[in-house]
This record gives sequence, C-alpha cells and structure tokens, in this order.
Amino acid sequence: MKQVTLNPPSLTIREEVRPEDRIAVRDIVESTGFFSAAEADVAVELVDERLAKGPSSGYYFVFIENEGQVLGYACFGPIACTVHSFDLYWIAVHRDQQRMGLGLKLVELSEQAIRRMGGRRVYIETSGREQYKPTRGFYERCGYHEDAVMTDFYDEGDDKVVYVRKV
Amino acid sequence: MKQVTLNPPSLTIREEVRPEDRIAVRDIVESTGFFSAAEADVAVELVDERLAKGPSSGYYFVFIENEGQVLGYACFGPIACTVHSFDLYWIAVHRDQQRMGLGLKLVELSEQAIRRMGGRRVYIETSGREQYKPTRGFYERCGYHEDAVMTDFYDEGDDKVVYVRKV
Repeated sequence: MKQVTLNPPSLTIREEVRPEDRIAVRDIVESTGFFSAAEADVAVELVDERLAKGPSSGYYFVFIENEGQVLGYACFGPIACTVHSFDLYWIAVHRDQQRMGLGLKLVELSEQAIRRMGGRRVYIETSGREQYKPTRGFYERCGYHEDAVMTDFYDEGDDKVVYVRKV
Repeated sequence: MKQVTLNPPSLTIREEVRPEDRIAVRDIVESTGFFSAAEADVAVELVDERLAKGPSSGYYFVFIENEGQVLGYACFGPIACTVHSFDLYWIAVHRDQQRMGLGLKLVELSEQAIRRMGGRRVYIETSGREQYKPTRGFYERCGYHEDAVMTDFYDEGDDKVVYVRKV
C-alpha cells in the first residue's frame, strides 16, 4: 500500500478517547451525508461504551486532528471468540477534509494498532448498494478483498459485503 | 419444518430472564463439552447484559424448563443497522436432555419471537470445523441454508459459516 504522509504536518494522531469525542464523532459522521440517524447513534454509542468501560469495551479508536479539531476517525476492535480477527467498524472523514488521503491514513493507523494487539485479519462490512460503490472501491484500494456477500442482509435489495485483509 | 411437541408435557417455556439464569446458562453451555471457557463467559455476559439493560440490551432469550430446572435455552436479537435481520446467538441443550427435539423446539420458539418483533431473516454463525458438522447438519434440518463461508475467520483453518433462514 502507498505510504501516506500527513499534510499539513500540523496534523496529529490520538488514540485516547475523550468525552468531547462524542460530539466530534457525531459531527463527522453526519457531515458525510452518508449515514442514517440510527447509524450516527450507533457511532456515538461506541464512543460511550469506550468511555464507560475502557479497553474492555472492545472498541478502539484513532483520531486525526488538526490543532485540536478532529478531522476524521476510525473505530475497530477484536471480534469475540476469534483468535486474531478484528472488525474495522467505522472510518469517517469530515466532508470538508476529504480527498486528502486521510481515509487511507486512518485505515493504515488502524491496521498498525490491530497488529500491535495481535490481530492478523481485519474485516470491514459494508453495503452492496450502488451508493456504496465508491466506499467499496476505497476498501479495494486499501488492499481489502471481498470475502462474502450476504443477500438482503441490511434490507430487501441491500446486501452486506464483507471485505478482509491480512495484516 | 416438523412441529415438535414438548414431551413430557410438564415442560414449560419462559422468555423472562432471571439472575439465576447466569448459573443455568453456564451449566448448560459447559455440559455440552462443546464450547471453550471464553465462549461460556460470552454466553453468561449476554445474560448479564440483558439483566442490566433489559430489552435495550438487544438480547432476547427463551428457556425450556422442567419443573423450574432449565434444560436448554436460546439467545437471539436484532442486528444493528438492519431492517429485519436477527442473529440467533446461542442454542444449547443440557447434555442430559439432548436427542429429544429440544434444540429444534428452541429454534422454532426463537423464530416465532423474532417474527413477533418484525424480524424476517434469521442468521446463525458457526464454525466450519469437522467438530461442528453435526451442528451444521442440525441447522440444515431446521431449514437454514449456507449463506457465506469466511475462510480462517475464527483461526487459521477455522472458517466461519453463516446460515440464514427467512421466517
């Protein structure tokens, strides 16, 4: 995979989760125009779980910030009852900060953290709908390949597509 | 699917979850000799979540009892961000009570409860290992078909097999 340099260099990376990330995560997820209100609620719930339970929540985060403002984030964690499989639950970059390579950088940072924790396979689930074609293309550019398609999983006519990458 | 009559007729069905089910669930899961200690812990955690949060835990249960003793149980719940998909997380029958149709009855009772809640697709995940061949055969007899196989998901050489049934 292509190595991405953070640009501008003032960007910083943070793995610690803070209460104010609840608002940042909602803002970012909603700014994309891509997720339903219910999905945004789930994104924030994962922050809440992490704040309440720490690492035992099973949710890990990486944030990319510019002078204290969160531009994008990823959320991932080990899959229960597996030896070395992790789910990459969320990757979202604020709409104003897209097309600068931050998404790819967030995937790389997540994979590095997953490897540190002993993970060897990373899974990403997404929709098979036309709207998600750019998303699927993005995962493929990140080195992921399609592992399974589950017909009508999300809704009638809305399949789940599972991508995987060995890390 | 064949209709199963509970036999003996003293068997009763319960959906309410009680604190003492923590012990019953661990006993049943361990009695099968089928699950690891970590998996038994997960089974009990789902009871804990349900006791702590009620229906908002997302975990629903059905127990089959004989004069107050739990013989087997199932745990299921809606899959977040889907319209009508449910996971059947656990079905376990105490080793001393197997081969009497209780497993099939638990699947039927779960499907009925899922339909009541608006569910239309039920998913079951299991291992592709040889040890789980009878389990997979059981799901197929219950009317489930294989929807996806994810290579090495649980561990090297241990695939995840996903079954689905429309209800």
